[in-house]
Amino acid sequence: MVSTIKDIDERAFIAQLSSIFGRGNRELSVPAGDDDCAVLEFGGEYLVVTTDMLHQKTDFPDTMTPWQIGWMAAAVNFSDIAAMGGQPLGLLAAVGYPQNMSLEDAGEIARGMRDCAEFCETSVIGGDVDSHEELTITGTALGRVSKEELLTRKGAKPGDLVCVTGTLGGAGAALEAYLKNMDVDYDFMKPLLEPVPRIAEGRMLAKSGAVTSAMDTSDGLALSLYDLASVNEVGFVLREELLPVDRRVSEIASSEKEALEMALYSGGDFELLVTVSKDMFEALQAESYLTVVGEIVDIDAGISLVGKDGANFAINRKGYLHIGTSDQI
Amino acid sequence: MVSTIKDIDERAFIAQLSSIFGRGNRELSVPAGDDDCAVLEFGGEYLVVTTDMLHQKTDFPDTMTPWQIGWMAAAVNFSDIAAMGGQPLGLLAAVGYPQNMSLEDAGEIARGMRDCAEFCETSVIGGDVDSHEELTITGTALGRVSKEELLTRKGAKPGDLVCVTGTLGGAGAALEAYLKNMDVDYDFMKPLLEPVPRIAEGRMLAKSGAVTSAMDTSDGLALSLYDLASVNEVGFVLREELLPVDRRVSEIASSEKEALEMALYSGGDFELLVTVSKDMFEALQAESYLTVVGEIVDIDAGISLVGKDGANFAINRKGYLHIGTSDQI
Repeated sequence: MVSTIKDIDERAFIAQLSSIFGRGNRELSVPAGDDDCAVLEFGGEYLVVTTDMLHQKTDFPDTMTPWQIGWMAAAVNFSDIAAMGGQPLGLLAAVGYPQNMSLEDAGEIARGMRDCAEFCETSVIGGDVDSHEELTITGTALGRVSKEELLTRKGAKPGDLVCVTGTLGGAGAALEAYLKNMDVDYDFMKPLLEPVPRIAEGRMLAKSGAVTSAMDTSDGLALSLYDLASVNEVGFVLREELLPVDRRVSEIASSEKEALEMALYSGGDFELLVTVSKDMFEALQAESYLTVVGEIVDIDAGISLVGKDGANFAINRKGYLHIGTSDQI
Repeated sequence: MVSTIKDIDERAFIAQLSSIFGRGNRELSVPAGDDDCAVLEFGGEYLVVTTDMLHQKTDFPDTMTPWQIGWMAAAVNFSDIAAMGGQPLGLLAAVGYPQNMSLEDAGEIARGMRDCAEFCETSVIGGDVDSHEELTITGTALGRVSKEELLTRKGAKPGDLVCVTGTLGGAGAALEAYLKNMDVDYDFMKPLLEPVPRIAEGRMLAKSGAVTSAMDTSDGLALSLYDLASVNEVGFVLREELLPVDRRVSEIASSEKEALEMALYSGGDFELLVTVSKDMFEALQAESYLTVVGEIVDIDAGISLVGKDGANFAINRKGYLHIGTSDQI
């Protein structure tokens, strides 16, 4: 019986919460819980805002430096702003510090946040300090975007091209190396420990007018596809040969199958997944940061992958979930 | 030596963080860390935004119901919006749930947040769910306020009247009753467990044009006076006979001295402390929710109280601090 937090699927739980919170706020332009950010109409444009709670045990591997912890806490939030096409306006950071944390480490966390905010052309504008047994950081990022440029999860239709920024599975490969105590260098671990919010890419995509839907891939490509499929009532066909698998995945995976699984199902990449109208794609073709990985099909076709050998595989609904025990990797 | 979180004074630590974060954001209208909210210029008005992290051990007495926990997590944030004169636009809630929390309790927390947001004429517009050993909730509230109406901590000057909303020490008295396991009724505990954000009062004060500075009293009246004194380089003289001491304080305190201490130094009241130009006070005199408690004086006079017997006492810098061990009550 589903009666406690550990028994429930994260997305089902969010749906329950949404039904309690209601959708009655007249300022709200996208229903609560439906997208990477909440969207408020404000002064003729949209304000996009998002919050993410991270904590030591789950989110900060023990090799992570305090600076990286700060960077990460900022980056996960700016990634959501990027997914809406937003220009960042600022970051709030509520931090619960363990009593015995050194002020030097606390300062390094702050510098990590500041540096990530600066990378996103903004700054830390406020926050809260608290003491907490386990280091816990909740970031809140704000952004602005004009009404015409807002990117949302809703709008994808059969025939659209499916594209991603960057590479797939880099963070998953780094996590694997960490869990297996492998001897890898700083650069290998970077996608996991210092994810880069795709703000510049998000802004370019927003301005292009070619994007029909967008979200980030923080919980893995597969879960993101399932989210877009559910919102838009569509299916997906991806092509294995098109996937920009991160070179770390190839280095670490013991088989091609394992490499493919890592590219599809591992979380932490913080890339953008976007769908693009075919007839508008020309406007984006010069954009080297974008890779076409497949196409949208009818909902009945489900979510599948055409392998290098031409065979068709179903992509499963699994990836990284923050609560619930089902399907976690 | 001050080298860890537990050794440092909260306000000194915030000052250190502010110096790391810098003050370079051109959209920012009030420097980071200087007020109850961050203030961003947006579409010709101000966006005010604030975040607060609460967790089981420190913030949720074990008699608190899940509904009250949700209400509290929302209320502390809306109180900061009230202190800036803002009209609430929405609440984001990031919640780290213990794995064994029942879905019923999780739902009650959500209903508490929703009800508090509705009381503040807005709604929960988004958030994040996470699992956490200790129940941890970080709320983020947003509000809007016109440029002329923004209330800030800066602006108080000698001669201004010092006023508070509501009563003083009610939450402190309830905390005392809780800690001493006293047999008190639901209503007695209400100020501690269901604080009321002074949104309507904040809006009226903002529109009056009479307020020279404002903040909330969440860490106690004394600490709030010290904060305003420091920002404005002024002193305060309060009059004991004017203090609207909560009736719970009189019921529970063992002496008049203890009652006065509770009114001055206990936290959790979430009332507004405002200073008002004497020549503008007429505009506010019809407002029964406001009590004049004293007057602003020169910085050299310090922060003091004239007792009922006419003697002058120094008000100390103590109250509720979230980190650091000095001066906590």
